[in-house]
Amino acid sequence: MATDKSISDLIADYQHGYSLKQDFYKNPQIYDKEMKNIFLHHWLLAGHVSQIPNPGDFFLFEFDKESIIITRSKQGKIKAHLNVCRHRGSHVCLKKSGNAKAFTCPYHAWSYDLDGKLIAARIMDSDFDKSENGLHQAHVELVGGLIFISLAQNPPSLRGMQEDLTDVFDQFGFDKMKLVKQNTYPVQSNWKLAVENYQECYHCAPSHIDYAKIHALALTPQKFNPFKETYLKETTSNVRTKPSSYYFDLAKEGDEGYQYERNPLLKGMKSGSLGGKPVAPLLGKINHFSEGASEFSVGPVTFFLIYDDHMVGYRFLPTSIDTCVADVFWFVREDAVEGKDYDLETLIWLWHVTILDDEKIIVDNRKGVDSRFYSPGKFSKMEDMEQHFVNWYINALKK
Amino acid sequence: MATDKSISDLIADYQHGYSLKQDFYKNPQIYDKEMKNIFLHHWLLAGHVSQIPNPGDFFLFEFDKESIIITRSKQGKIKAHLNVCRHRGSHVCLKKSGNAKAFTCPYHAWSYDLDGKLIAARIMDSDFDKSENGLHQAHVELVGGLIFISLAQNPPSLRGMQEDLTDVFDQFGFDKMKLVKQNTYPVQSNWKLAVENYQECYHCAPSHIDYAKIHALALTPQKFNPFKETYLKETTSNVRTKPSSYYFDLAKEGDEGYQYERNPLLKGMKSGSLGGKPVAPLLGKINHFSEGASEFSVGPVTFFLIYDDHMVGYRFLPTSIDTCVADVFWFVREDAVEGKDYDLETLIWLWHVTILDDEKIIVDNRKGVDSRFYSPGKFSKMEDMEQHFVNWYINALKK
Amino acid sequence: MATDKSISDLIADYQHGYSLKQDFYKNPQIYDKEMKNIFLHHWLLAGHVSQIPNPGDFFLFEFDKESIIITRSKQGKIKAHLNVCRHRGSHVCLKKSGNAKAFTCPYHAWSYDLDGKLIAARIMDSDFDKSENGLHQAHVELVGGLIFISLAQNPPSLRGMQEDLTDVFDQFGFDKMKLVKQNTYPVQSNWKLAVENYQECYHCAPSHIDYAKIHALALTPQKFNPFKETYLKETTSNVRTKPSSYYFDLAKEGDEGYQYERNPLLKGMKSGSLGGKPVAPLLGKINHFSEGASEFSVGPVTFFLIYDDHMVGYRFLPTSIDTCVADVFWFVREDAVEGKDYDLETLIWLWHVTILDDEKIIVDNRKGVDSRFYSPGKFSKMEDMEQHFVNWYINALKK
Repeated sequence: MATDKSISDLIADYQHGYSLKQDFYKNPQIYDKEMKNIFLHHWLLAGHVSQIPNPGDFFLFEFDKESIIITRSKQGKIKAHLNVCRHRGSHVCLKKSGNAKAFTCPYHAWSYDLDGKLIAARIMDSDFDKSENGLHQAHVELVGGLIFISLAQNPPSLRGMQEDLTDVFDQFGFDKMKLVKQNTYPVQSNWKLAVENYQECYHCAPSHIDYAKIHALALTPQKFNPFKETYLKETTSNVRTKPSSYYFDLAKEGDEGYQYERNPLLKGMKSGSLGGKPVAPLLGKINHFSEGASEFSVGPVTFFLIYDDHMVGYRFLPTSIDTCVADVFWFVREDAVEGKDYDLETLIWLWHVTILDDEKIIVDNRKGVDSRFYSPGKFSKMEDMEQHFVNWYINALKK
Repeated sequence: MATDKSISDLIADYQHGYSLKQDFYKNPQIYDKEMKNIFLHHWLLAGHVSQIPNPGDFFLFEFDKESIIITRSKQGKIKAHLNVCRHRGSHVCLKKSGNAKAFTCPYHAWSYDLDGKLIAARIMDSDFDKSENGLHQAHVELVGGLIFISLAQNPPSLRGMQEDLTDVFDQFGFDKMKLVKQNTYPVQSNWKLAVENYQECYHCAPSHIDYAKIHALALTPQKFNPFKETYLKETTSNVRTKPSSYYFDLAKEGDEGYQYERNPLLKGMKSGSLGGKPVAPLLGKINHFSEGASEFSVGPVTFFLIYDDHMVGYRFLPTSIDTCVADVFWFVREDAVEGKDYDLETLIWLWHVTILDDEKIIVDNRKGVDSRFYSPGKFSKMEDMEQHFVNWYINALKK
Repeated sequence: MATDKSISDLIADYQHGYSLKQDFYKNPQIYDKEMKNIFLHHWLLAGHVSQIPNPGDFFLFEFDKESIIITRSKQGKIKAHLNVCRHRGSHVCLKKSGNAKAFTCPYHAWSYDLDGKLIAARIMDSDFDKSENGLHQAHVELVGGLIFISLAQNPPSLRGMQEDLTDVFDQFGFDKMKLVKQNTYPVQSNWKLAVENYQECYHCAPSHIDYAKIHALALTPQKFNPFKETYLKETTSNVRTKPSSYYFDLAKEGDEGYQYERNPLLKGMKSGSLGGKPVAPLLGKINHFSEGASEFSVGPVTFFLIYDDHMVGYRFLPTSIDTCVADVFWFVREDAVEGKDYDLETLIWLWHVTILDDEKIIVDNRKGVDSRFYSPGKFSKMEDMEQHFVNWYINALKK
């Protein structure tokens, strides 16, 4: 779709230091550009290898109008196939998850193997070339057991991130976690209002009582900065404290943006839980609770908060221009036993209530942004990360 | 938004004497123009002072994507603030009504006083100017205790109306009424089909059995005109009979349109109620029932029907291009006591059933107007007022 | 509405042998063209004379935003009136079916006789011409007792079809059937995906177990072609076997497309029913079951399957760009008695379950066609009829 002059002007006119104009949340042409330049280009968290341990296991990863089959091949490799039959376009796989020997379209029975190759197409002319009619593939990359996919022809590189954070993945045992819960929270707003909400802790103190009792990030910069400085100097933790700030507009040219950072929890707090109490066995090679947590993010819509004993993942996906979902994933070490080593309700409590609060906040934000009287407002210094997101976003639209 | 040639042509091509073309009800560009030139310009009934007797009392007035906080300041003045935080746009006030010391945004705790001034914004840079970030204000004007607002920078003047109708407001005791009931009736049609329906009594005889038993306006002009002439000559009423017909395209340049007119009820009918029986104490300085009622309207979507013992207000507001609401307000004198001086169900009966009838009629009208085979039809002489509305509407779009 | 360049290019670029691009299912300009060039031009099945045996009997035929009153005049003629009042456009007839002396608009009581003539309009000026304000008429043509209408000014001709198929209508007793059941199946997809589904039996074997047990058409061409050849040579049936293939792009210039064709059922199968058992008395002049069935279609969205003992009609109608309905009609000979000569549940079973299957298939097809990764796929030889439909469709859009 050609982008008309008014859209180019809108993008060019973004004023640094301020929130985005209403059009960015409402204009269908903008949304089409976002789909093309962001969601069909950048790396998205699809799920975790523990969801598909055996060949033929699969689950669907879906957003907007797209459906992708994430499966494990006979050779044990993770594959991502577009769930669109090459004949007349039907969804090929109708179940949300399961195990399959092959993916056979329910309409005319064209059949694809686990690698996406078309292996059977009844009654086609002799000149029909099956080899040119396999399912479209998405790129797949594993970060520990995390499955990331990109729908781009040439996705941004993840190599720099993988090399940079080898020690982090090792310390937290990224290869030795399992996904124990995934919740989907529908939000009646454009996806950016949800991502922006996640970007800043300016709202944490007023909005998230439970979070703010545990996390130093809810403090004002005046209090947080010296507190963090001391923490990083004095921490006894055996996990990396050196940050990597290549997020959003700070990413290297050609690379996917990413971030790693260690932050203090409040005094006495060991984990992200009621009262800051431990909720699961220590992750990876971590040898004791040290009142801190690590942030890790990759790409535009995937964020992780890694406590010493569990990891929480957040993923924001558009379902339409006006609606999105926040998916939350909870991980513990793979040998932890439910009911013995961790209690699921206890584990998920904090972020379940926090995301429910956010859902309300975001929708009330959207209601005002919908008004003809909304105009971009000035960011506070606690919205610095959101500013980086917006800078990057504006550039992404220009491409 | 620029208006393209086809829209200008559409407006220019309106044919006097006929109903509007389908595009006026369906084209989003037309709807945008209506919002800008009509609903964000003209005076709208927001409510009544009896809803917010004390400083800090507030209620929300909402239409389309707009939300306005109507409140009473510490000094007792009525104020109207746009419910859009100047930071990132969140709705500031989430409750539909209540009492507040200040309006504090639930997102990042920016706080506004009852006058809309920004009084607190945490952790902002030192160069941030609070005085430039108060809530946007709407103009407020009181007509007796009725609260009207305009979202225009320079609203049309209400002064002529206020001076002209001083005697009317005094006779009916506009300052000494209270709002005792407000009902909202959603209608699945463009707002104009609802306003047009209210404009004409051509449909009263076929459609409103109960109304037609009480109101002479449901008669044919042949019968109504001499009946009214006699009534105005012989009436014993102590309220004004001299009409003021400055409605719609008859408004003076720069003034908001308005109307006052006295009409007869049918013989023996004292009020708008079952059997035409009195339902409340006489309003204001009215000293006896005189088988008449007064019409009073201000601006494009607010109409009043004043019986000797109660007043009914009607307000039509778009909620989207395809949907609207009819709000109906019932007023009695402020010292009337429910259960003793009036019974609420008895009071509201007539217009509750009449609006429910209208809702059905309007939706059936809309279904036909949606057809590709609809074309504007000829108005009857009983649709004279609707013609004035349409004339004014077409002119309003031209601006 | 002017059609912009991109739409013309889209139409011009259709690639023979492949399914349609996504835009044909999603673009509102395309949909407007379809309405104008297809649904407001071609012949559509409205219903059957047995639904309105007496003068004044009526039923509504509705699709998209259109509503048409099908009624029988005092003289006994079938009439089709647009259900749009010539005054302000209200639906005139609100009941789905019934009997009326005249059609009186519920809004302002304009009244139309059974021929659609305006016979009363209260209080209109003396220069108002009632004779110019009758209800708009659609063309009506009967095919046996089947009522077809066209909303065109100059509809395509049905004469060739009527003459060609005189013997068929006589053999099956088209004049001596009655409609005993009509079911409406809503489908969440553009109407073309439903029509395309009906066009081909490539999906029958994988998707319709029950259908495939009875109908030879579900066989591969390799098996079907010799099977049919033998059947046509050896059949003992007294109904016509000579086909008429003037469907879609094969129609003669100026004529509505139509088709007649005789096909074998599988060995031992007598009718379209559980086990292929007879379900009603033989139609018309048919003297014995002969393990065959006839296809008959007229225009773009109406298809019939005529078993020896009953006829099933299929009609696909858009309700919006994204939704449609499949209507299924069951006919038996008019003197058959329910409970004695046929059992309704037994009669409708096969096509009820088959259409329910199709509804799921079509929606899954739509989900994939919605994807940005859908691209037109190659037709098999079993989709030959669909290719004719698509050829015709592309030409229809060009007009």
